[in-house]
Amino acid sequence: MSPKRKLNFSSGPAALPEDVLRNAQAALLDLDGSGIGILEHSHRGKEFGRVLERTESLIREVGNIGSDYAVLFVTAGATHHFAMVPQNFLGAGETADYCDTGIWSGKAIEEARRVGSVHVACTSGPAYDATPVHQSWSAAPRYVHYTSNETIYGTQWAAPPRAPAPLVCDASSDIFSRPLSLDGHGLIYAGAQKNLGPSGISLVIARKDFIATGSKDLPPLSQYRTYADEKSMHNTPNTFGVYVIGEVVAWIKAQGGLAVMGERNAAKAKILYDFLDRSNAWKGHAQPHSRSIMNITFRGATKELEETMLALAEERGLSGLRGHRSVGGLRASIYNAFPAEGVHRLVELLDEVERGRA
Amino acid sequence: MSPKRKLNFSSGPAALPEDVLRNAQAALLDLDGSGIGILEHSHRGKEFGRVLERTESLIREVGNIGSDYAVLFVTAGATHHFAMVPQNFLGAGETADYCDTGIWSGKAIEEARRVGSVHVACTSGPAYDATPVHQSWSAAPRYVHYTSNETIYGTQWAAPPRAPAPLVCDASSDIFSRPLSLDGHGLIYAGAQKNLGPSGISLVIARKDFIATGSKDLPPLSQYRTYADEKSMHNTPNTFGVYVIGEVVAWIKAQGGLAVMGERNAAKAKILYDFLDRSNAWKGHAQPHSRSIMNITFRGATKELEETMLALAEERGLSGLRGHRSVGGLRASIYNAFPAEGVHRLVELLDEVERGRA
Repeated sequence: MSPKRKLNFSSGPAALPEDVLRNAQAALLDLDGSGIGILEHSHRGKEFGRVLERTESLIREVGNIGSDYAVLFVTAGATHHFAMVPQNFLGAGETADYCDTGIWSGKAIEEARRVGSVHVACTSGPAYDATPVHQSWSAAPRYVHYTSNETIYGTQWAAPPRAPAPLVCDASSDIFSRPLSLDGHGLIYAGAQKNLGPSGISLVIARKDFIATGSKDLPPLSQYRTYADEKSMHNTPNTFGVYVIGEVVAWIKAQGGLAVMGERNAAKAKILYDFLDRSNAWKGHAQPHSRSIMNITFRGATKELEETMLALAEERGLSGLRGHRSVGGLRASIYNAFPAEGVHRLVELLDEVERGRA
Repeated sequence: MSPKRKLNFSSGPAALPEDVLRNAQAALLDLDGSGIGILEHSHRGKEFGRVLERTESLIREVGNIGSDYAVLFVTAGATHHFAMVPQNFLGAGETADYCDTGIWSGKAIEEARRVGSVHVACTSGPAYDATPVHQSWSAAPRYVHYTSNETIYGTQWAAPPRAPAPLVCDASSDIFSRPLSLDGHGLIYAGAQKNLGPSGISLVIARKDFIATGSKDLPPLSQYRTYADEKSMHNTPNTFGVYVIGEVVAWIKAQGGLAVMGERNAAKAKILYDFLDRSNAWKGHAQPHSRSIMNITFRGATKELEETMLALAEERGLSGLRGHRSVGGLRASIYNAFPAEGVHRLVELLDEVERGRA
């Protein structure tokens, strides 16, 4: 890491691999020796055509995604999909089941309720410190929606829920952080700005036969089938976003792929959770079986301790540790690109503050 | 210009100022000495807060936009607004009037017809070589939509149509290329990827009291009021797009503002139109009073001449001159960042090919 770069614990947009950023720097003035920068290339030209093809192909290879699934790029964040999913798949007389694990699934539920009938099949509220163990499905859900990782509360499904209908997953904060389980999934959507790239673009991985069941009574850009039929090129896509995602996924591949990322991320998280379990001053929020390996949320024994820690962290170049405004406390977001060294430095500082030596 | 950079005549995404690209290169690794890159900064942090504020403030200053108008950033291209405008403003029992000047307005009309009643008040088809002189408005249109510049046919409204209702303008291909006329406008939208920045983000300039008349029966991200009420931060915006737009508008300001841009762009276009008017082999498409200063479309006397020219142009580093696939011929897109020198080089080559000396 360059000496001047901070340790960035931001929950998203978040730290990206420095190699990716350096490649992007070069591509801004000249993409692959074309004499034109990545922001300036026509999306219909052969150069961007190659970028799009490479990014999709790397995603398929690294994610082990077969031809029964489409890989789509949507110019929008995950919040857009909160509405787009029910618009596409929740018809009159149908019910969609939702798993409520916190603020993000709450927003998805709210949007779905504008469109049709929603059944909350399980909840971990009001504490939201775990993923639900018991689910009560409706008679014949159209789909089952869950949020694989809860960025704000710091919980994560160890495995997808077993559901009686196609799963729809908001994977914004843990996509490609561990091997991808497509089993049972109709559609996975993810805002790119945590593990994949910049904000303003989302990745969708969806079964082609599930996409085909969607409503046709929507503007083309609101139908997933348009992206599948026109290879995400119905209109000008976020070309820079597609490029950066390709670079990030190439970096993941070079690291050894998703199995290696999963092991690394689990090991990084364990460093911090082990410390929290030992500490008398700091306490993790999530229950052990539901702990997120991406966002680790914790509280200090006192509000004062938290503020002391946050101020010291900023001084020492550890940035973005304040918890989400809705829940308070501290949060360490340690996505793929966040280095293990940074977690060690965080633990050292937490320990110093606890011992009153900082 | 760096020696290796090509002359980029692409219609969009398109050439950007090299100074902007160099600033963006630095910001990728470290935004303003913060130790964190622009792609990696939380959208809720103070650093991005300053970027957003600066971009909006520069747009207001350069565009001379008062406080009765909102300045919004929407993570989407113009095609998204084709649907979003009627969804917001075209209610049951109402009619919207549209000016048909070619392919882009045609797409806007198609989307509006999915939502409600549309009256095509004027058309320049089927040749689309001019902007319409005569309009026949409906009794009480909800709004009047026009496309200020037709990228594919190369026509441009010299001044906005005089309409009996708030104007809604797709200004994607000429925003900030000349002084902005807000008079009579309810809403202006523009995909950024021609004169303003990268693809995947659009700028909206809209009267606050017009926004307030929009439907509330839509998902929040489909309502313009959400962007106005929440300062384009209802969800994570395209942070890099907002940053680059700020850099581009700062560059426009440093050049002398929109009046200077307008003079420069008119002068650049005149070089090429004057040549086309003199030439026996090359002929401009648009009628003189409707000529675009952004996209200059023309044909060769024979298809063979066109192909000879296109092949030679690529050899000599003049890129992106092939006309849109739907109309053929050649097209030179010469937005703000395109240098006058490049237009001279194009004219020289066209002349060489005409004289058979190339």
